[in-house]
Amino acid sequence: MTRALDPWSLPEAAVQQPSPQARASVLAVSNGWVGVRGALDELRPAAGPATLMAAAHDDVPLTYAEPAYGYPSSSEHLVPVPDAWAVQLRVDDHPFDVRLEPERHERTLDLRRAVLRRELDWTTPSGARVEVRSDRFASLARRELVLVQYEVRATTAARVELRPFPCCAGAPGAAEAPEPDPDRPALVVEACAHDGERSTTVHRAVRSGVRVGAAGVHRVEAADGVQVHRGGGPHVTTLAADLAPGQWLRLVLPVAYVAGPDRAADGLLADARAVLDGVADLGWDALLDEHAAVLAEVWEHGDVVLDGDEELQRAVRYGILQAVQAGAGSADVGIRAKGLTGTGYDGHTFWDADTYVAPVLDHVLPAGAQAHLRWRHATLPAARDRARVLGLEGAAYPWRTITGRESSGYWPAGSAAVHATADVADAVVRHAVVTRDETFLREVALDVVVEAARMYAGLGRWGSDGRFHIDGVTGPDEYSALLDDNAFTNLMAARTLRWAALLTSRLPQEAGERGVTPDERAAWQRAAEAIAVPYDDELGVTQQAARYTELAVWDFAAERPQDYPLHGSSHYSALYRHQVLKQADVVMAAYLAHDAFTPEQKRRDLDYYEPLTVRDSSLSAPPQAVVAAEVGYLDLAWAYTRETALVDLRDDGRPTADGVHVAAHAGAWTALVAGFGGLRWDDDGLHLRPVLPPALRGLSFGLRLGPSTFRVQVTPTTATYRLTGGPRVVLTHDGGRVELTPAVPEVTRPVSPRPAPGPTPRQPPGREPFA
Amino acid sequence: MTRALDPWSLPEAAVQQPSPQARASVLAVSNGWVGVRGALDELRPAAGPATLMAAAHDDVPLTYAEPAYGYPSSSEHLVPVPDAWAVQLRVDDHPFDVRLEPERHERTLDLRRAVLRRELDWTTPSGARVEVRSDRFASLARRELVLVQYEVRATTAARVELRPFPCCAGAPGAAEAPEPDPDRPALVVEACAHDGERSTTVHRAVRSGVRVGAAGVHRVEAADGVQVHRGGGPHVTTLAADLAPGQWLRLVLPVAYVAGPDRAADGLLADARAVLDGVADLGWDALLDEHAAVLAEVWEHGDVVLDGDEELQRAVRYGILQAVQAGAGSADVGIRAKGLTGTGYDGHTFWDADTYVAPVLDHVLPAGAQAHLRWRHATLPAARDRARVLGLEGAAYPWRTITGRESSGYWPAGSAAVHATADVADAVVRHAVVTRDETFLREVALDVVVEAARMYAGLGRWGSDGRFHIDGVTGPDEYSALLDDNAFTNLMAARTLRWAALLTSRLPQEAGERGVTPDERAAWQRAAEAIAVPYDDELGVTQQAARYTELAVWDFAAERPQDYPLHGSSHYSALYRHQVLKQADVVMAAYLAHDAFTPEQKRRDLDYYEPLTVRDSSLSAPPQAVVAAEVGYLDLAWAYTRETALVDLRDDGRPTADGVHVAAHAGAWTALVAGFGGLRWDDDGLHLRPVLPPALRGLSFGLRLGPSTFRVQVTPTTATYRLTGGPRVVLTHDGGRVELTPAVPEVTRPVSPRPAPGPTPRQPPGREPFA
Repeated sequence: MTRALDPWSLPEAAVQQPSPQARASVLAVSNGWVGVRGALDELRPAAGPATLMAAAHDDVPLTYAEPAYGYPSSSEHLVPVPDAWAVQLRVDDHPFDVRLEPERHERTLDLRRAVLRRELDWTTPSGARVEVRSDRFASLARRELVLVQYEVRATTAARVELRPFPCCAGAPGAAEAPEPDPDRPALVVEACAHDGERSTTVHRAVRSGVRVGAAGVHRVEAADGVQVHRGGGPHVTTLAADLAPGQWLRLVLPVAYVAGPDRAADGLLADARAVLDGVADLGWDALLDEHAAVLAEVWEHGDVVLDGDEELQRAVRYGILQAVQAGAGSADVGIRAKGLTGTGYDGHTFWDADTYVAPVLDHVLPAGAQAHLRWRHATLPAARDRARVLGLEGAAYPWRTITGRESSGYWPAGSAAVHATADVADAVVRHAVVTRDETFLREVALDVVVEAARMYAGLGRWGSDGRFHIDGVTGPDEYSALLDDNAFTNLMAARTLRWAALLTSRLPQEAGERGVTPDERAAWQRAAEAIAVPYDDELGVTQQAARYTELAVWDFAAERPQDYPLHGSSHYSALYRHQVLKQADVVMAAYLAHDAFTPEQKRRDLDYYEPLTVRDSSLSAPPQAVVAAEVGYLDLAWAYTRETALVDLRDDGRPTADGVHVAAHAGAWTALVAGFGGLRWDDDGLHLRPVLPPALRGLSFGLRLGPSTFRVQVTPTTATYRLTGGPRVVLTHDGGRVELTPAVPEVTRPVSPRPAPGPTPRQPPGREPFA
Repeated sequence: MTRALDPWSLPEAAVQQPSPQARASVLAVSNGWVGVRGALDELRPAAGPATLMAAAHDDVPLTYAEPAYGYPSSSEHLVPVPDAWAVQLRVDDHPFDVRLEPERHERTLDLRRAVLRRELDWTTPSGARVEVRSDRFASLARRELVLVQYEVRATTAARVELRPFPCCAGAPGAAEAPEPDPDRPALVVEACAHDGERSTTVHRAVRSGVRVGAAGVHRVEAADGVQVHRGGGPHVTTLAADLAPGQWLRLVLPVAYVAGPDRAADGLLADARAVLDGVADLGWDALLDEHAAVLAEVWEHGDVVLDGDEELQRAVRYGILQAVQAGAGSADVGIRAKGLTGTGYDGHTFWDADTYVAPVLDHVLPAGAQAHLRWRHATLPAARDRARVLGLEGAAYPWRTITGRESSGYWPAGSAAVHATADVADAVVRHAVVTRDETFLREVALDVVVEAARMYAGLGRWGSDGRFHIDGVTGPDEYSALLDDNAFTNLMAARTLRWAALLTSRLPQEAGERGVTPDERAAWQRAAEAIAVPYDDELGVTQQAARYTELAVWDFAAERPQDYPLHGSSHYSALYRHQVLKQADVVMAAYLAHDAFTPEQKRRDLDYYEPLTVRDSSLSAPPQAVVAAEVGYLDLAWAYTRETALVDLRDDGRPTADGVHVAAHAGAWTALVAGFGGLRWDDDGLHLRPVLPPALRGLSFGLRLGPSTFRVQVTPTTATYRLTGGPRVVLTHDGGRVELTPAVPEVTRPVSPRPAPGPTPRQPPGREPFA
């Protein structure tokens, strides 16, 4: 880079993605309830669906070549909703289209405020010239609201016409809607109206019955003396003005998005109008301010600051923003793998929401983590039902879902991935530990861990070896399936069982109300203590699953670059019987279940699995970064940090067109804070063991613990802990106690040198970190 | 039974199946090329599809909820063909329909000649009375031919009209054919004509392009003085006569069925006409005689005679007939799981054709076995292609198929069942050993075993324990999947490797032509000798797969009768992680790979697995019978023999409506001949160790060895071996050599008593043999 980057803004030109669809994903603004991808205001040329709502899904039949008992009959798919925020521009009757090659066309995502700004200068074929600036955000203060400000300034005399809220143009009603494809999610129009300053629509998803309502107000401002003509009809509004040179016309569009299953159209529209009424007295600046205030709090306490890599500085802020945008408004709906930046994975939520994203939000936006985790709690009935179908007690969280129902059509890598339930349980306990939110503990965490523990206690079996075993399951690595004693699954199940025993002993009354007996608690404790962790004594390596290290090693030398991802060129039966990892599995366990491994064991396991891990999943690099940093392979950790932080900002071959990889972005925070910062947690609180990446001169990050906030500043030789809010923080640094109080708000400790323990392990050929 | 059964005929009334569809399956006549289910001549009321051809299939798209690399995109489904043999009867303009309740209506399957006879007496609503007799068979002498003789005899004066060949009534051509359902196999009419004495049709399967041609001749005979009027038009023929009391009208219908992919309509019809021309000079009796002659040979050398159980005597003959009907005309098309008695399993061929049916045909109709096995050889190119998709060398036979392409849509119980290839290899070697057919050995067996051995040699891996392991596969038991070192698979793979080493060393020139080097042969031999067979030292039990005996045992006590089959009420994930067998797996290995088990081990394994085996597959009882007989549980063996022999003749809850269970019927022969007869084979020939079931006073069966035939007569104390044809038989009886020659054609040996080795093992509650 020859000129300094602005570490708070992401210009479209800096997004190294050739496809407009991928850039539309990267430039999405979202609040977790509603998201607007980086579509152009005028919606053409299209770059995939433009507007997504977490609550707007349709059901799509799942068909099986060979059906069997308990297979989900349908999948919940996110369905795009009306682009009610769009604005179409005509100048001297020429409709603007970016393919007309305006003199200037720039878009920039403001990372500090999560606003997408667009600036363009255009000379029409007739010679009129205008400058256009639009700003767009999805309010983090009022999740139903998307806001657009669209301003046209004339350089020459120009007749300017704006058409806001185009979503019911040509759509007189449901009766004339085309018959939808039975295998695709679909919305049909039920109602649509433009009446003066307001426009409204109601759509209904064909099979799920979910209704979506959108209502927008067109607030028009103009330079003095400009006459604005409102026109249009029942299905379109036009705002036209003749501008003299220098005059301007501005449209401010608050659009309210509401949705829900089993909602009547009238009620929905009333909700949407109430949202608009609630902001009737608030102008653009006020609405932007309250939105930006949420982010100001995020950055104040949660920013990660890197001294020495501007590109990564911007990327990690982008990553934190993705977690915030996915989680902030996720109450009742949960956090999706692609956020609301695309329809990839059918818009589903997976375990990474709990394991990758929620822990970041615990520190940068705890309300967002809690919104997601309370949604998990609210879906316990579906998880209980699913457990029954699988022949299990307690609750089994789905592999992929929108409302909580299992939507996976391939159970060996879906329902068999029973770690998903432990991942939720661990996340709720972590949230309770970090926030010290006693209400959450009693209302949410206890239910989840008790139901999860019951599931694992019934799933496992006691072996003749005196160990507690879990047979026939699939761990995070999807190039294996249905193995016995997956180490990750077993260790996470043991944590769950331990948390359940711990919480029920701390909350005896609430436990009793949930039918937990002392015997049941004791059984959980025993199973947790006796959990089987397969180990290869000869190699000194934790086995991914029983017998795993005996399997043949994949012939990596035979693979060409175009053969990746391997599941696109090899049959599962071949992958499954070889040692080849789509993503880190034991290494992930070495991070999350850190106390089950000695430091030396973590090194040996990383050394062993690194040459077997192809990272065909974007979930892989973050735990590899964390464990590499912990054991002393700092350059490797740094390479993985860069890979994960830049995942969608560069074209590394992973699909970005259908949405960004939210968990991988959260993983950048994790790589820096849990990797180089060494953050771990246990029921007794937080533990740090920082070290500086050689590529940086300094690294700082902010954390929360209960009502307090603090920052950690790492230099090559020291770590300084500084209380930034709240009464008190107690943590450990390199195992030593650190206490911060208003009286002694800052403590500096030496950072232990962390030499590499040996030669850095190699990846499979051609699968080196995309640093 | 109060009156003696005719052990050579099966009246419809003796078929204890309530549904007409099931009885239509049981009463099917077939020759393995074309089959006519027990539909009524007039085709109403319908009882499922009526006519099936082994070569008539359509392609049906396979859709996956989550597609992946190497999943078959379509499945080959058998598609019903025109019912060109049907005859519609009108008397005094009243169309006959069995629902009009004729005074008499009886159908009987003649087991000796495979002819379905129907007799009915009917008084029309107008008072006319006729007696009708029809006979139907699918010629075992000319596989294209279905023959019907339909005779009407008037008791009163009656105007009788017959309409043969109704298959193009109302079908003027393909152009007006309805649009077929994209997810179902479908034939459309391409041509149809009635011209005087002949009728022809051509149909085309919509997606596979397979064309089916049928041509029939209507040969009319009548009592002296009866005037027969031919009428009708281009799409229908009518034959009408006014009969005086006692006069008769008879129609003999030879119908030729031809089919093939990529065949032009003209060529097909020419083929069909040529078949008809070939029988132009042969009357009904001559055609029936040449057909019955094939069966006469079957019964002369292959009959199994039971003294003491008339019901089972009839059933075992029915069973032998099913194997013959499925296999006789199977050249180029193979043997289907349901024969051509129904469209169950989509008409597919599975491993049981090789493992259950072909070995029976080796002795009762060797040409039928060879027809099937040569078809397997002809499909080697598809098996090679499939191996490549699975990342394997050599050839991998499909789990289910019609033309040789994999048609399974659930790979963990499909392509992962790699034993299918060993099953073919073992069957071809067995056929070569039994027939001593050197041409077959060189032309078929060598190719199959070499390609199969190459597949297993590449699939397996050498473990640090010095053993050769096969990971992540599925054995015969479908309530387990993707386990390591499935004992059955490994033992059958080892046999394949051994056969490959043996045959290539016996045929060095042919082996060299196939690129087999001494090193490759040596590697096969080493792998075969070092094959891993998982064993539980503590229990003293062969494990179904590595770690299998460690799995939790299924909670059988919780299952109600309606919960069976368990895959209809439990998720695979639950079944797979428990010890519960759909069908015998280790016990099957103890039969087929008999020399890998000591007698004591077989007993221990049977004792262990019997309480875990629910027999939700009809393939289970036969090997259980065989091994139970071998180890001395003779009553149990007898109970399983009855269960398998009577499988479709009683309603035991298994589906018969979509076809009979051909392999289970072949299994009745196996239970008697390999179970009580003790027949085993190895490359040195045949070995017997007979014992009489306590329920019988005598048992005899016929076997073949090379050009010779012999019978074995078992009494409570002796076994008598008698040469019935050919030059010489050498075998062992209880391990002692027996030689039969024309000079010494009969040898009697004592039968060793076989006391039960202990208490008879129990099955899961409610899953006792259906004896």
